[in-house]
Amino acid sequence: MGYQTPLLCILCSLYVSGNAESQKKCSKDPEDLAQDSAEKQHQLDSLNLLLFLSLLVLTILTIWLFKQHRFRYVHETGLAMLYGVIVGAIVYYSSSDKLNNHERSSRSSNSCDAQPASTLLLEVEYPDNSQVIYQYRQEGIAQNTPNATNTDFEEKVNFDPETFFNVLLPPIIFYAGYSLKRRHFFRNLGSIMMYAFLGTCISCFVVGGIMYVFVVKLIQIENFNIQDCFLFGAIISATDPVTVLAVFHDLHVDMDMYILVFGESVLNDAVAIVLSRTVTEFKDSSFTAGAFFSSLGVFFGVFIGSFAIGALLGCFTALISKFTKVREFPLLETALFFIMSYSSYLMAEAAQLTGIVSILFCGVTQAHYTYNNLSEESKRRTRELFELLNFLAENFIFSYMGISMFNKNNQQFNVLFVLSAFLAIILGRLCNIYPLSFLLNLGRKKKIGMNIQHMLMFSGLRGAIAFALAIRNTASESRQLMLNATLIIVLITVIFCGGLSTQMLAWLKIRVGVEDDDEQQGHHVDSGTIEHQLHRQRQKEKQAKIVALWYEFDFKYMKPIFTNKGADLRETLPACCLPVAHCLIKQDEMIVEDSDTDFILSEDDIAPTDSNQDTPSDTLPEDDAALDGDLGLGATKLQGIPPMPSQQTII
Amino acid sequence: MGYQTPLLCILCSLYVSGNAESQKKCSKDPEDLAQDSAEKQHQLDSLNLLLFLSLLVLTILTIWLFKQHRFRYVHETGLAMLYGVIVGAIVYYSSSDKLNNHERSSRSSNSCDAQPASTLLLEVEYPDNSQVIYQYRQEGIAQNTPNATNTDFEEKVNFDPETFFNVLLPPIIFYAGYSLKRRHFFRNLGSIMMYAFLGTCISCFVVGGIMYVFVVKLIQIENFNIQDCFLFGAIISATDPVTVLAVFHDLHVDMDMYILVFGESVLNDAVAIVLSRTVTEFKDSSFTAGAFFSSLGVFFGVFIGSFAIGALLGCFTALISKFTKVREFPLLETALFFIMSYSSYLMAEAAQLTGIVSILFCGVTQAHYTYNNLSEESKRRTRELFELLNFLAENFIFSYMGISMFNKNNQQFNVLFVLSAFLAIILGRLCNIYPLSFLLNLGRKKKIGMNIQHMLMFSGLRGAIAFALAIRNTASESRQLMLNATLIIVLITVIFCGGLSTQMLAWLKIRVGVEDDDEQQGHHVDSGTIEHQLHRQRQKEKQAKIVALWYEFDFKYMKPIFTNKGADLRETLPACCLPVAHCLIKQDEMIVEDSDTDFILSEDDIAPTDSNQDTPSDTLPEDDAALDGDLGLGATKLQGIPPMPSQQTII
Repeated sequence: MGYQTPLLCILCSLYVSGNAESQKKCSKDPEDLAQDSAEKQHQLDSLNLLLFLSLLVLTILTIWLFKQHRFRYVHETGLAMLYGVIVGAIVYYSSSDKLNNHERSSRSSNSCDAQPASTLLLEVEYPDNSQVIYQYRQEGIAQNTPNATNTDFEEKVNFDPETFFNVLLPPIIFYAGYSLKRRHFFRNLGSIMMYAFLGTCISCFVVGGIMYVFVVKLIQIENFNIQDCFLFGAIISATDPVTVLAVFHDLHVDMDMYILVFGESVLNDAVAIVLSRTVTEFKDSSFTAGAFFSSLGVFFGVFIGSFAIGALLGCFTALISKFTKVREFPLLETALFFIMSYSSYLMAEAAQLTGIVSILFCGVTQAHYTYNNLSEESKRRTRELFELLNFLAENFIFSYMGISMFNKNNQQFNVLFVLSAFLAIILGRLCNIYPLSFLLNLGRKKKIGMNIQHMLMFSGLRGAIAFALAIRNTASESRQLMLNATLIIVLITVIFCGGLSTQMLAWLKIRVGVEDDDEQQGHHVDSGTIEHQLHRQRQKEKQAKIVALWYEFDFKYMKPIFTNKGADLRETLPACCLPVAHCLIKQDEMIVEDSDTDFILSEDDIAPTDSNQDTPSDTLPEDDAALDGDLGLGATKLQGIPPMPSQQTII
Repeated sequence: MGYQTPLLCILCSLYVSGNAESQKKCSKDPEDLAQDSAEKQHQLDSLNLLLFLSLLVLTILTIWLFKQHRFRYVHETGLAMLYGVIVGAIVYYSSSDKLNNHERSSRSSNSCDAQPASTLLLEVEYPDNSQVIYQYRQEGIAQNTPNATNTDFEEKVNFDPETFFNVLLPPIIFYAGYSLKRRHFFRNLGSIMMYAFLGTCISCFVVGGIMYVFVVKLIQIENFNIQDCFLFGAIISATDPVTVLAVFHDLHVDMDMYILVFGESVLNDAVAIVLSRTVTEFKDSSFTAGAFFSSLGVFFGVFIGSFAIGALLGCFTALISKFTKVREFPLLETALFFIMSYSSYLMAEAAQLTGIVSILFCGVTQAHYTYNNLSEESKRRTRELFELLNFLAENFIFSYMGISMFNKNNQQFNVLFVLSAFLAIILGRLCNIYPLSFLLNLGRKKKIGMNIQHMLMFSGLRGAIAFALAIRNTASESRQLMLNATLIIVLITVIFCGGLSTQMLAWLKIRVGVEDDDEQQGHHVDSGTIEHQLHRQRQKEKQAKIVALWYEFDFKYMKPIFTNKGADLRETLPACCLPVAHCLIKQDEMIVEDSDTDFILSEDDIAPTDSNQDTPSDTLPEDDAALDGDLGLGATKLQGIPPMPSQQTII
């Protein structure tokens, strides 16, 4: 196993003389003293967590009030963040002695030498010649000179950034994948990919370039090099429009608009994470062609590797749930589903790929295949479980962001830097949306209107992922500037853009109160007229070749292998594979469905909008809403909004 | 805020010269090096967690197979532990160089001096005169001399013991409280309290005494003092009969038997935790009367304080859910419920009380009051959520225990110690069950039969709590002996007693296949004959005074304040409190019920077994089973077991 860290152990033999406190505790064993210290830390941790939980309770109660009074200008995430800012300010200003954010002795950026030990052992000799060796683990670079009062604030709101990546982000991202409206997603796949991949890269480069011009050339911040510029570009390019999507959902905006914003933001998180990694690993500060292509290789390698792990684990879960009867025990099934999904994250991380990308595609695969094999109870349980986890994690992160605003230990405020960053992200988004929309409109049947383009531009909120990327490493001054700018950008975009999105929809005259086109059509199919099915199939043929090919492949091979739906493998597989096909068909269940609904099934499943498909969005249309990215609160529709006729616009 | 840890900072100015690896990485910034180190640690963590998750997947699939084939001799927890042992052995023996469990330089137990710093700052000067200060946090006492290969195994299965207390135990304990069959529990309250409080103390003292005689006097293990003996007594007195209860549930044993075992084990965990704390805080090694009574004070103080916090938070949640309409949004309601429950744990910990006790009683209160106010959807969601969390946490802990068997870094094996421990726990349980049952039978109407006493004796398995208490502190040699003995005891009792419990029931001729008496009677009440209600009330009057008093108080004041059930506050409260009573009654809902079912309600609710009471076990008799302590798997009954007539015994 090739992951043994070289443990550089430095043995400091220190003869610690007793101070006042230790003299008082003299009747205690050293192990008791160690326990006391651990208990104190534990108490602190409990208080920290309690602070966040109280904030969450406050947020939940306020959201309830808002929902009750149909007040739609502040979303729960914005609220959580605002409360966080208030509490952070109180904690900060009530500290007995304020943090002096003094200048740190800066290191020149090209200084290099030994990496210090990750573990220190401290040998303490007691007067009776007994020895105890205490172990210390490196926590990172200390930002302050050793002054106990300085770390007071930090101790109050101390939270390990790795927790974001290992505990809080995975459920959010998984839920995004699991609740993806795949029909709409696949139909707009080309545009979404364009915005997400090309658009995020454009945004990254534009932001990086502007930051370089402003920060390095004009403002001349010390130690902020070109790599930092592009790292910031990557970090800040991750959009997170939960707030906007919640509004979209409540108002039932045009589905294509919805899926463009949702799809872009989901994929673009993945792209931004891989991009920021690529930039970090970019060794040379000179941009040679070779280095560029090697980075490109890393980018696609990491992305495809992570994608593969996620998809494979999803398919593996589908196979388990198909071929075992674990569905008879919903608790076991749900537990299995949960563990396998989380494993995809861990596996990618352990393979030094990107867990977030992996768990995103695992979520999509689970929804597309495994979901079909689950028992009815497990379908409900998994949906509700991830909905809750997503809700808790998201609000926790935004609370934490709010509180972090005042933590001066890992950030530095520079007004010019923040202003440059704002300019950069606006221009970056501009160069992303409008040129790409123009290009896309050349190829699209259904054009992306100017009002939708404006709305896409407006939906570029920053959120959890940008923050998580920024806080992951705050060891240098440049990183601390970035974290601070990221926090301010998140706060302002979430509150400003989030709050104004209802108005924005009205100003841009974007259709609201639209019934999901497909659902309407889906109901028609329910009535079973074959003309309709043929019509849909013809419609489908107008789609992009690649999407049509995928549908075909999915229907003929993937669906029947991983679920009990789709074509009959005995017909689609070549003759030589017949024994394999027989093994893959679950006799008892397949035959029942085949005998009865064979034709309908095959016709339907090619047309991806049919209600027989038994996907989350198909079998449970009324619950479909709950799955779709607005934290599920949309499932309980706001009362009192008059049912709007299709095509209505708010004026 | 009085929790500022004295941060003793030691500044070691070290000039670290580059080694081979650091020379290679010379082109990197120090912050990159720090990031590399963090990434390696992160990768290791991911691999560790992945190992446990794979074990869980394996366990789940095997359980499914066992359930499928109605193989009832191994419970999932036993299985998880067995798999853990196997994997632990593989990891241990496949390590390139085995751990040499060498003798540590032992310290005399009365050595005392300064507590070393909890944080070390290491200042590294780079050749260009730039300085970086790295921060190290104390992790405890290093058990090995600095030899990198020695920590290989530990790094593979490294897991912070605090995680048990903060993440894994709370859901298990909360679920126990939430799923408690309160009717049966209250009816047997006296006996359960006797076993749990007096019995656990007896067990602790007997085990401690026997360990003192054997280990200190006969075997004469160095540094194992009398305090350690009683600490071990407290640790090992926590019983955890999940396995037995699962069997009880599947076979539908006599409800009184079931609730005695369940109630005892739930409360006794709380008692053992507080006891072990009390023993640790017992300063003098001489047992004076004063010290004893001060310990008794600590014991009751901690217990009552923790109980109060849990109950208060439960009542507070009940009030929120009663007076807000948050129930219109089940997601918000479930999140609130979850957060409030977990807060009770954290609040007790932050107040230096015992979180586990607090969350247990919070669970009971939530089930008794809050559950009545929840929307139907939230009732289901909370039940399913905690069922899943309980399942995952429990199996994770048992897997971890299995793997820990081979971790020689924090335990020491001593065959005589383990044998003494076994003898001690058997005698301890003997002195607990039989004398107390004799005493109880003097007062009980329905005697506890000898066969039930034998079964109680047999159900004294050890599990998660004992392990968590033992692993919390392994700083001294004595503690390491205890951890090792605890692990072995858990493994053997879970597999042996758990596996044989079906046989045991048969040998002892204990009634199985019994329908829940109360459920039958409850159905009679459903038919609504008033005679029956009067009969039940008369039955109730035969109960112990204290229980009857509690019912009265609960019905008259608690239920109507915290829920919409129970008596009419306007009648039960004195006249001066009438305005308060009006505020506490939710007009819109109370009146509807009052106008219609006033008499029935008041009659019913006094009789604690009525189906109008709308508690978890009452409204959902078919789901009641799922709530009751066997990990909910019992909800899906084992197919193929013929319905047994009441009163049947297995012969």
